[in-house]
Amino acid sequence: MSHVSILGTGNMAQAISSIVTKGGNTVELLGSDNSQAVTGDIVVLAVPYPAVDEVIAARADQLAGKVVVDITNPLNFETFDSLVVPADGSAAQVIAEKLPNSRVLKAFNTTFAATLASGEVGPLPTTVLIAGDDADAKALLSGIVAAGGLKAIDAGALKRARELESLGFLQLTLAASERISWTGGFGVIA
Amino acid sequence: MSHVSILGTGNMAQAISSIVTKGGNTVELLGSDNSQAVTGDIVVLAVPYPAVDEVIAARADQLAGKVVVDITNPLNFETFDSLVVPADGSAAQVIAEKLPNSRVLKAFNTTFAATLASGEVGPLPTTVLIAGDDADAKALLSGIVAAGGLKAIDAGALKRARELESLGFLQLTLAASERISWTGGFGVIA
Repeated sequence: MSHVSILGTGNMAQAISSIVTKGGNTVELLGSDNSQAVTGDIVVLAVPYPAVDEVIAARADQLAGKVVVDITNPLNFETFDSLVVPADGSAAQVIAEKLPNSRVLKAFNTTFAATLASGEVGPLPTTVLIAGDDADAKALLSGIVAAGGLKAIDAGALKRARELESLGFLQLTLAASERISWTGGFGVIA
Repeated sequence: MSHVSILGTGNMAQAISSIVTKGGNTVELLGSDNSQAVTGDIVVLAVPYPAVDEVIAARADQLAGKVVVDITNPLNFETFDSLVVPADGSAAQVIAEKLPNSRVLKAFNTTFAATLASGEVGPLPTTVLIAGDDADAKALLSGIVAAGGLKAIDAGALKRARELESLGFLQLTLAASERISWTGGFGVIA
């Protein structure tokens, strides 16, 4: 059994929490009070990208040795037309550089909260794409996702977070422009 | 009715040809002999990205005034680990700069040939994502795709080709690493 700490209490945090507990694992959701220590072996950063720096500043020591899951889509939310991370990088890689003693994964950024909560996107099971450089960490998170009734796919090394963030960005622009709904999006047919 | 010229005779060219003709439009497929003039109002560049420069060099004048559809995934095929276009750009934008008198669209790069040919990806209709700066050109191509039994979604301006190429790249890496099959891939749930 795994114990998962989720930093954040929004709809993504709630949806990920439901996946964790459906699979028989345990979870804590922590709000913006960074003085409360995390107790999980896996820590999900379920805060907007602009809030990540503050979380890291307050918790870098606590996150050492843990699996840290970055779920952010680092959009420029003023223009909704670009990402705010380096063009040849990703939020996950920026975070990994700031947390050299953590095992950072990218996951959950290519699935809307509604499809995480329901476990379905249209006629398909919701698939969580996971990128990271640590195979054990990816296997751990994949197991939690699968136990919660969703599919997990290893999308490769952490540098593939760049493509996952492009996918998340594209999906957000399609929903914001009403080409797709917030209960739809990209599904994966294996 | 539209007349479509496809430059290329590979499996993507064949699949796009079948979509065009299913919808009651007409098509010509042209091989590597660039001396044969294109007769279509829409020209699909269905050659590998490294061959695009030669096509443009031979046909830039012919392509003036036409809708040019870039379907490439500009991978580094030696490493299968990166794209060969600028990190903040795309093949489509590179091509558009070289063809200032054409209306360049990005399309068909996020769907494997098998799902274009069958019109289905798993339980979903195959969806063609189209990016471009010319609304009329996008509408024309969307109509051809829809007439051929597939779905088309306007993915935004030509700069969104960057995200479409990231998606195509990711999908190719997933298939090459056997996480998904070449008859699967990403589907779109509207």
